[in-house]
Amino acid sequence: MHWSHEVVSDGVRERRFELARGPGPVPGLLWTPTGAEGPRPLVLIGHGASGSKRDDYVVALARRLVRHHGYAAAAIDGPVHGERVPDAEQVPGLAFLRFSQRWAMDPAMTDEAVADWRGVIDQLQCEGDVGAGPVGFWGLSMGTILGLPLVAADRRVTAAVLGLMGLTGPTRERIVADAPQVRCPVLFLMQWEDELFPRETAFELFAALGSVDKRLHANVGRHGAVPVEELDASERFFHHALSASREG
Amino acid sequence: MHWSHEVVSDGVRERRFELARGPGPVPGLLWTPTGAEGPRPLVLIGHGASGSKRDDYVVALARRLVRHHGYAAAAIDGPVHGERVPDAEQVPGLAFLRFSQRWAMDPAMTDEAVADWRGVIDQLQCEGDVGAGPVGFWGLSMGTILGLPLVAADRRVTAAVLGLMGLTGPTRERIVADAPQVRCPVLFLMQWEDELFPRETAFELFAALGSVDKRLHANVGRHGAVPVEELDASERFFHHALSASREG
Repeated sequence: MHWSHEVVSDGVRERRFELARGPGPVPGLLWTPTGAEGPRPLVLIGHGASGSKRDDYVVALARRLVRHHGYAAAAIDGPVHGERVPDAEQVPGLAFLRFSQRWAMDPAMTDEAVADWRGVIDQLQCEGDVGAGPVGFWGLSMGTILGLPLVAADRRVTAAVLGLMGLTGPTRERIVADAPQVRCPVLFLMQWEDELFPRETAFELFAALGSVDKRLHANVGRHGAVPVEELDASERFFHHALSASREG
Repeated sequence: MHWSHEVVSDGVRERRFELARGPGPVPGLLWTPTGAEGPRPLVLIGHGASGSKRDDYVVALARRLVRHHGYAAAAIDGPVHGERVPDAEQVPGLAFLRFSQRWAMDPAMTDEAVADWRGVIDQLQCEGDVGAGPVGFWGLSMGTILGLPLVAADRRVTAAVLGLMGLTGPTRERIVADAPQVRCPVLFLMQWEDELFPRETAFELFAALGSVDKRLHANVGRHGAVPVEELDASERFFHHALSASREG
């Protein structure tokens, strides 16, 4: 684990890290309350396709969780995204295509992404201001494609916000197998006019989740039109679920 | 309008009223902040089949809206419910059957219920501590069967929580006609394992609502298992929607 670029603003400390991994380093960001000590809940945030760990909503959610709840939050660049792509290949519009190709052609991508996140949890929980507290996961669309298998595989994750995805696409069988293994409380988000994942496939995915404690929020509009009220809902959901698992 | 039985507790004033109507008086309850003066949002609460204006969740929601937001709230006994049924006919278990029969046999019931609510709005807005503020409606199941047509018909209602209902049942055609006339912000609640209104019919009803600003929350469990977090969500929804319409 290599640390660099520390910035502090409005009570939030942001540290860039690189997790050393066989296939190449995984760049990420950790946000914690300034001056914090001791264990606290950690929320992992997986960005969507064509985004990065620096997407506006990623940073906004992370800073809310730190400032409103005293949590730690972390994001990494997904496969073939952000700093994991050479500058020369950073062509606008190509990121989505690049991911789609990889999704279709490389089933190992999911396992690698799960290993990335598990390595991140291992390392971040060694930090004095993170510690071995409860872990939450938040990721929509590609964030769910790669994050649902993490939630299914790692019992340290005790609350998850998933969605903008359905039982469809190249890794459908993998998701069909993993969804019943998700057992933690889930908030599932979907868009009523989602042009990428038809409504019925989203319902199927929600129904397939193994969690007893789950709820679905549907909003009007296309794939990218998730309203800000769902960031509020995410925040409340984590507060409730991670505080409960902290006490229980 | 006849007033009786005033009780005050924990900052909430509760007054029983009877609205004079041709078919017979409509008994109701009005909750307001003690010592309140001047106009404020009014939320109408329609109970479900076999319940009454005194159902626990009705009173709980009303008191929250009064105490947390300074609103007024009102509930009435629905047709063939509560005080509108003679004591001799108050047989446990029969209320639901009685409503189902009426729903199947008497299409005028909907219009009468709409007229009841409109009369309640007319009269309550003459009270000094209610006034002509924005109006919200909250009603699930029978509360939606009878309340959706009110929301469709009366533009004074500027926010509605509806649900536990689908495009099915004896008044399906009426609801099909009215749903597109609902234009205000809506929070629609449904239960994933609803044994009375199949999931698909609830999706159809949500889709049919004319509102641009609408969202659907689905929770796990049968018809009666709406979790208390949706009372929280209702409260936030009204606060947002009725405060916005108050300012705009």
